[in-house]
Amino acid sequence: MEQQKPADLAESVYDVLIVGAGPAGIQAAIHAARRKTRTLLLGRIESSALYPAHVENYACVDGVKSGRELLETGLAQAVRFGAEHVREDLLKISQRDDGFFVVETESGSKPLCRALILAMGTAKTKLGVPGESEFSGRGVSYCVDCDANFFRGATVMVVGNHSAAVDGALTLLDYASKVYLAATELKVSDELLRRLKGSGVELLAGRKVKEICGNETGVQQVVLDSGEAVKADGVFIELGAKGALQLAAQIGVQMDMELFKYIEVNRRQETNISGVYAAGDITGPPYQMAKAVGEGCVAGMEAAQFVRRQQR
Amino acid sequence: MEQQKPADLAESVYDVLIVGAGPAGIQAAIHAARRKTRTLLLGRIESSALYPAHVENYACVDGVKSGRELLETGLAQAVRFGAEHVREDLLKISQRDDGFFVVETESGSKPLCRALILAMGTAKTKLGVPGESEFSGRGVSYCVDCDANFFRGATVMVVGNHSAAVDGALTLLDYASKVYLAATELKVSDELLRRLKGSGVELLAGRKVKEICGNETGVQQVVLDSGEAVKADGVFIELGAKGALQLAAQIGVQMDMELFKYIEVNRRQETNISGVYAAGDITGPPYQMAKAVGEGCVAGMEAAQFVRRQQR
Repeated sequence: MEQQKPADLAESVYDVLIVGAGPAGIQAAIHAARRKTRTLLLGRIESSALYPAHVENYACVDGVKSGRELLETGLAQAVRFGAEHVREDLLKISQRDDGFFVVETESGSKPLCRALILAMGTAKTKLGVPGESEFSGRGVSYCVDCDANFFRGATVMVVGNHSAAVDGALTLLDYASKVYLAATELKVSDELLRRLKGSGVELLAGRKVKEICGNETGVQQVVLDSGEAVKADGVFIELGAKGALQLAAQIGVQMDMELFKYIEVNRRQETNISGVYAAGDITGPPYQMAKAVGEGCVAGMEAAQFVRRQQR
Repeated sequence: MEQQKPADLAESVYDVLIVGAGPAGIQAAIHAARRKTRTLLLGRIESSALYPAHVENYACVDGVKSGRELLETGLAQAVRFGAEHVREDLLKISQRDDGFFVVETESGSKPLCRALILAMGTAKTKLGVPGESEFSGRGVSYCVDCDANFFRGATVMVVGNHSAAVDGALTLLDYASKVYLAATELKVSDELLRRLKGSGVELLAGRKVKEICGNETGVQQVVLDSGEAVKADGVFIELGAKGALQLAAQIGVQMDMELFKYIEVNRRQETNISGVYAAGDITGPPYQMAKAVGEGCVAGMEAAQFVRRQQR
């Protein structure tokens, strides 16, 4: 993999700078670079939510692939089309009076760019209990849509108070043999509450998860604050998500401030700031590789077109 | 590949019915079927614009793959997740008073569905001259964004009168060594005309293409109505596109009626008709596999969710 040194990066001017080396950022880099714009992809594939995941539902790629394998392949593609890649995180963004964006990286480099694509993904809100990180990917999941299919015939617990948690529990009924919903205080519409009540989901109302326990094969039970231990093979944590949005806020990008915080874009992946695009999980659900790749494609092509129109 | 017989299809009721077995339809089928809805994918992979194409820019799939290989892999995935597939085209769509859509197929079957995903792609307008179909894929292209990269250092001609043709010619300047634009009558903004004039593109104004000539290796020259023969390795035909939109019009789906006719959707891939979604080339440019797959993902998940909400 080609790597630029921070020393080169310091004085560089790019056409398109993409923040985040997940599937959206990589697909954006492929399209922007193939469009012959000077393109920089900033970020580590290890930071992508895809990296530790397993994918079986990305069209035309057969079998179950590791996120790591997919991302390494995609990154090599982007580099081959001419994108430069630097394994650094972004610390600060600003916009100069002449329209260029200035991106400050970890190492103190400040590359400039004409167009910026935000593809840093989103950070699911953690429950913050013992066992959660230990069993992440081994029974603990933050995405019902992604992982329900891996829990066929199993016993699962969803944790959360909002519609995402209730929708998740209802979805899991089609896969798991038993579904619990642990909610400290449900905050959903009457309609959704009605559907929940007739559904077969067992509501553990007012109950808080204290610990997730298991062994080397994965999750085995969930201990509640009441002292009860509930047998479960999987725990879905649906507490919302925060993007790396404080960075986007620095240049005035508009966001939806609901439980799932995300950047608002139109069908061209444009944000409210001219020259700033967003793609992937950072624009909200569904949190799927295919959706991220599709948005990355559009963002990469639109950003390249934006730059070309300024140059000619 | 599993195949349903038309006899089975005749009386069937599906949750989600997807029309068009290209990348958008296949990804939609994967997501709808994985979501445990009864899903039918209607259409032939051979009808997809991807089938004869070569793809090098779909993230995380390395090298140059044939469209046929990609589509066969994707279709097998969709079937493995439980989607049924029938190799038939759609003749007619209507909606019953109870909300179900009725789809009439070639063989006279009339399966019903609660949610419908339109993913039939788009048909690029043909020039209609000798040599055009003969050299299609061997020098004649209908997509600058897709194929410009294959014409590095070459001499190319763009044919068309609208902004897509001018944008295409400007894009090709970054790849080809010589770019002609044959336009019978340019219809573009003053701004675009100004950019064209200073660009290096050689405008053949008022000139009509009479014939595309070549040999077994591909296109060699273009004969104009003036009698001139212009040496060219590639011809890009940018005359607009029509989706299979008369079908969509039967149920009142709203369309953009510009040069590139397409179905209007929002970020959930919803059309103006409740329960009807659209994805892929049929929703307009960019005509890219990654964009189609991303939209198929969202359409499949949204359609499944729509059905589930009706059922519970």
